[in-house]
Amino acid sequence: MKHALGIDIGGTKIALGVVAENGTLLASTTLPTDSRLGFKSAVQRMCHAARKLFQSSDTAATQLAGIGVGCTGPVNPLTGVVDNPHTLPGWDGCNLIEALSAEFNLPTWLENDADVAAYGEYHFGAGEKADRLVMLTFGTGVGGAAVLKGEIYRGAGGGHPELGHLPVTNDGPLCYCGRKGCVESLASGPAIARVASELGFASADAVFAAKGDNASASKALIQARDAVATATWSILHSFLPDRIVFGGGLVDAYPIFFVEAARATIARARLLDTTAVTVAPARLGNLAGLVGAARWAIDQQVLGYPRSEVHPPATRSQAMLPKL
Amino acid sequence: MKHALGIDIGGTKIALGVVAENGTLLASTTLPTDSRLGFKSAVQRMCHAARKLFQSSDTAATQLAGIGVGCTGPVNPLTGVVDNPHTLPGWDGCNLIEALSAEFNLPTWLENDADVAAYGEYHFGAGEKADRLVMLTFGTGVGGAAVLKGEIYRGAGGGHPELGHLPVTNDGPLCYCGRKGCVESLASGPAIARVASELGFASADAVFAAKGDNASASKALIQARDAVATATWSILHSFLPDRIVFGGGLVDAYPIFFVEAARATIARARLLDTTAVTVAPARLGNLAGLVGAARWAIDQQVLGYPRSEVHPPATRSQAMLPKL
Repeated sequence: MKHALGIDIGGTKIALGVVAENGTLLASTTLPTDSRLGFKSAVQRMCHAARKLFQSSDTAATQLAGIGVGCTGPVNPLTGVVDNPHTLPGWDGCNLIEALSAEFNLPTWLENDADVAAYGEYHFGAGEKADRLVMLTFGTGVGGAAVLKGEIYRGAGGGHPELGHLPVTNDGPLCYCGRKGCVESLASGPAIARVASELGFASADAVFAAKGDNASASKALIQARDAVATATWSILHSFLPDRIVFGGGLVDAYPIFFVEAARATIARARLLDTTAVTVAPARLGNLAGLVGAARWAIDQQVLGYPRSEVHPPATRSQAMLPKL
Repeated sequence: MKHALGIDIGGTKIALGVVAENGTLLASTTLPTDSRLGFKSAVQRMCHAARKLFQSSDTAATQLAGIGVGCTGPVNPLTGVVDNPHTLPGWDGCNLIEALSAEFNLPTWLENDADVAAYGEYHFGAGEKADRLVMLTFGTGVGGAAVLKGEIYRGAGGGHPELGHLPVTNDGPLCYCGRKGCVESLASGPAIARVASELGFASADAVFAAKGDNASASKALIQARDAVATATWSILHSFLPDRIVFGGGLVDAYPIFFVEAARATIARARLLDTTAVTVAPARLGNLAGLVGAARWAIDQQVLGYPRSEVHPPATRSQAMLPKL
């Protein structure tokens, strides 16, 4: 059985784990991201934590198939460079692949965090190896990823799409994505909290807690429910996926709200045969990214990346730079 | 050089051609669809026309790699069955693959018309073999297709997505797709004509002709331009394609309107690296479907379908039926 080191880097914390090919977590830990302490500090702390995991799981780094990293994006999976001043201030232009592969002399892959979470759910969770899987995650932001025939879908230039910024209406608040009325601006935690506050609720949780008994709580959720429904309609009419998985903190807390909004809109679609389209809440919680990143690294090592875009880590950051 | 028979079936006419692997059209013809005369009549007329094309191009049916059919959808490419009561009344449940492959004893493939048009543009037109190509066609309806790494993209159950019914606003007219405010309901020829009529113009063409000199003509086009922009934003944030191609009758007549609406919205996207994303009007006009369908048939014969979904025509209609 192959093993890999999985790392899931968010704006607040970093999760690391030694993961087996079958998804078993041999050892794991978390540490604060503290990106303002600088990239070098974070790499040192990650490496220190990883070595402790190798000890506690009785694994030698040389036995590992590689390192898989999921990181809050934008990141460039081809070069390894982080480009996210919003949630990782101070890391701009830093190269995660170079830093980690140099430290452990292991092949290292970097993907967007939503991509590896979807890959984790694809192999070990609610994705159930669906031929075409689309996952949306709802929390502080809205993320998304597609796994098509077992591969993380990438777009032009090797970049990952931003399904959290699908347009759902032509008005609505202006988002930092450049447009009004994207799904993140209407159905993220802060978006729901904003409407909740206008209606006199203390938080998004208070709105969800009051729902059903309270007309203004229902009203506060209409915008989010419509956004989820419209994003689902968009995904249905573009990817026509076999499986749509909803994950993230908000979905972990209120799975029925998200799944039912999606199912109701899918039931209205008249032009598509949707009998093969199913919707489910994520099953791996906040381990999806960690486990998915590790499995991605293992699969790239075992199978080789099935397309021409990813090159061995030792050469790709230089080889690909001129093209980008 | 391989050759195939390409057939492009629309609600009004059927185009047939003998096409070489390199896209050269050796002979072609069109005939009225007249679907109300019945499926059997249409098959007989298509077969008669095809035989005449074989004669005029000095081609024996036995020399052909196969038959590729693009048909106004919904169609089921796995079973061969047509399911389009709107534009092909009287053909419901009829099997094009069985009818044509039996007549000529040639392997036959059926795809949605937008799919084969996109495939034609991919190989011989504005698609320029982009790794990820998305095409939208604007005419009586709005169609769409994605060609990813050279394959026509299919969704759950082997069905094709319906990009023409991407949601672009939460209000707008109710479409037969089941939703208000999809792109077809706002930017198709009839949708533009409806707004034009409300503003006192005789037709969509009159609006386009007056544009620039006339405030109410500009006003009549705002809805369509916004719909094109929002659909483009949606495609950009889901597929992140290398190339977006606009085709169809409206685009042939007014390419700049569509291409500029898309380019302006792409320029506003802040989360994606769009330097590799280009937009172009289609180049093959109404030959795209014919040529694309033929090339699709040739590619399936030469390469074998690279996925497991398509089976040899003699067996697939029965073999796949229980699954659908």
